[in-house]
Amino acid sequence: MSEYIEHDRQGVSVGLVEERSFTFAAPPDGMLLEGGGRLGPVTLAYETYGELNTDGTNAVLVCHALSGDAHVAGYHQEDDEKPGWWDIMVGPGKGIDTDRYFVICSNILGSCMGSTGPSSPNPATGKPFGPDFPVVTIGDMVRAQKALVEHLGIRRLLSVIGGSIGGMQVLEWSVRYPEMVASAVPLATTTRHSALAIAFNEVARQAIMADPAWQGGRYYGGPRPDHGLAVARMIGHVTYLSDDSMRHKFGRRLQDREDFSYNFDADFQVESYIRYQGRKFVDRFDANSFLYITKAADYFDLGRSHGGGSITRAFSKAGARFLVVSFTSDWLYPTYQSKEMVRALKRCGLDVSFCEIEARWGHDAFLLPSPRLTELLKGFLSRVRQKIE
Amino acid sequence: MSEYIEHDRQGVSVGLVEERSFTFAAPPDGMLLEGGGRLGPVTLAYETYGELNTDGTNAVLVCHALSGDAHVAGYHQEDDEKPGWWDIMVGPGKGIDTDRYFVICSNILGSCMGSTGPSSPNPATGKPFGPDFPVVTIGDMVRAQKALVEHLGIRRLLSVIGGSIGGMQVLEWSVRYPEMVASAVPLATTTRHSALAIAFNEVARQAIMADPAWQGGRYYGGPRPDHGLAVARMIGHVTYLSDDSMRHKFGRRLQDREDFSYNFDADFQVESYIRYQGRKFVDRFDANSFLYITKAADYFDLGRSHGGGSITRAFSKAGARFLVVSFTSDWLYPTYQSKEMVRALKRCGLDVSFCEIEARWGHDAFLLPSPRLTELLKGFLSRVRQKIE
Repeated sequence: MSEYIEHDRQGVSVGLVEERSFTFAAPPDGMLLEGGGRLGPVTLAYETYGELNTDGTNAVLVCHALSGDAHVAGYHQEDDEKPGWWDIMVGPGKGIDTDRYFVICSNILGSCMGSTGPSSPNPATGKPFGPDFPVVTIGDMVRAQKALVEHLGIRRLLSVIGGSIGGMQVLEWSVRYPEMVASAVPLATTTRHSALAIAFNEVARQAIMADPAWQGGRYYGGPRPDHGLAVARMIGHVTYLSDDSMRHKFGRRLQDREDFSYNFDADFQVESYIRYQGRKFVDRFDANSFLYITKAADYFDLGRSHGGGSITRAFSKAGARFLVVSFTSDWLYPTYQSKEMVRALKRCGLDVSFCEIEARWGHDAFLLPSPRLTELLKGFLSRVRQKIE
Repeated sequence: MSEYIEHDRQGVSVGLVEERSFTFAAPPDGMLLEGGGRLGPVTLAYETYGELNTDGTNAVLVCHALSGDAHVAGYHQEDDEKPGWWDIMVGPGKGIDTDRYFVICSNILGSCMGSTGPSSPNPATGKPFGPDFPVVTIGDMVRAQKALVEHLGIRRLLSVIGGSIGGMQVLEWSVRYPEMVASAVPLATTTRHSALAIAFNEVARQAIMADPAWQGGRYYGGPRPDHGLAVARMIGHVTYLSDDSMRHKFGRRLQDREDFSYNFDADFQVESYIRYQGRKFVDRFDANSFLYITKAADYFDLGRSHGGGSITRAFSKAGARFLVVSFTSDWLYPTYQSKEMVRALKRCGLDVSFCEIEARWGHDAFLLPSPRLTELLKGFLSRVRQKIE
């Protein structure tokens, strides 16, 4: 991607956060995607935290999951209600210590949080792409991230870290650009979706497509498929939790009442919570982006793309030090899938640490406060830095 | 319910199957429901198999799950594509042997397979009830079944058997009418839904209600909320399977293609299967019935209804012999829930057998061929019959 024309816009800078976007274009007609489509110019919204050291060896790329964005930590405005999505882990003195590391997080290709995606204007028409947006893969997302990382003058990342779909990007980085990745931390992720994970994603996609407002994806400028997207989010949200966490968080407690309503109100707290999660999501996310990103996740198959069907052959291309983390109650990407990954990494003679963290919070556990995970990441990054310096 | 006026219609009888319906009405204005509503007259569609012995001691009531019907076994017409929903278990020489037992199965109250439900005509208007149908509970379903059983001249059931929501009816029978239940076989069920099970049901209901064709439940005579109902069914269907069964059944195999389509076609077999399950379901089921029955299941709480919050106190009212069966891969009603039930039954000094069957098929396992389950049921029914005769 060295021939790409690069544009960089400096955005607002509040406190820690440097909010920017980066646009690149490849002549003659854009980036050739793995699915065969072409896309260009491509914009990636990104943020950076901390300072890059003079020899450029302290850069950490954090990859976000399905609905995340570039805003991984801190506040943009002093009155922001919430900090970035992984503020518990990224910041001064935290697990990924911005006093020591230069942290980059970019919104993935296909998303709707500042990077090019189906809601972006199609240069050919000036209108949003909608269903004309080409299918993108995790590989395409990572190729775009690489252009950004090179644009920032970084030749090798100290670490690439991410959970869930972010973890897929981590794995893709480690195999596709081994010379650029000193260490890799895939959290709560998998080298490929199980049939169960695909099934839940497919039901969520069907919920969106069943909404008449979806209009085959050409809804921009009209009513949005909010009902379908809300149901899709609810499905996803339930799969991110666990039986145990929901029992503790909600059980069968009733919402603002002492007895059943005997109608279709949200009697149970868990019903009210699920409805709220759906409602809240439609305000910030685009339905088409949900379709494209979940499809990319379903297509992701590290062994198929890089090892002729074998994960071991795929990982034989990697050179990074790995820290693989799974969570006991994650039934979307269960520990056995991480263990398969670890066995393949070991067969390749790679330096790999594995930890299964005892957590009741299901797949979401990687986003929740965990002293164990914080210490693991802190220690791992320190050791990697010592070894490469 | 002895004051009810009874009407019985003899239906077609092909081979084994006696297809009938039974209508009863309680003066002055119907059955008083647990949720406070009134309903009457009430029709229950039912089928019987085998013959009732002269002393009426060989009757077995089979209770169906969410989308089942009275047609539990055999064929109505010789060219029927499929036999009844539990034909593998019910029939001559089978686990529930119709040469030995008189088997009754009735469509539950609130359903749409011949019994009174939201799609039935409201006597007050002559039009389908729709959302004016009162909320019914598992208790109400069982009270209606009791009227049917009494109408058939049976004073005591040799056994009440059912899985999932059918299992809830079994538990309700055992506690509400202990004098009428010699034995009870709750399969793959629970004394109350977990927050996880409620959450999945609620997302499914939201999918139906999000369909503009639902029209607040008043869609009869117009387009039906097929899209919403299909999504609801797909959600349910995924929860009935297991990670393991889906890996074996589908894995990541592609459907009629060798490479990814890189569009939103059903690339994976599991996607195609899930879409098919949704499509197929809307032809045979009513969306409002889905809402009412899932809500009844969510409300079901044996300890709350019959034991002031304690399952043990609830079961202290029971007198039946119990056979409790769970399945290893059922994550909707996991084994720990059956074990809680068994502990409570034992604390009450009841005769209880428990078996956790090793099965990879998830919650659906109770409906699939299992020599183990067949032998268990056969042996249990024989022993109970010997003991009471």
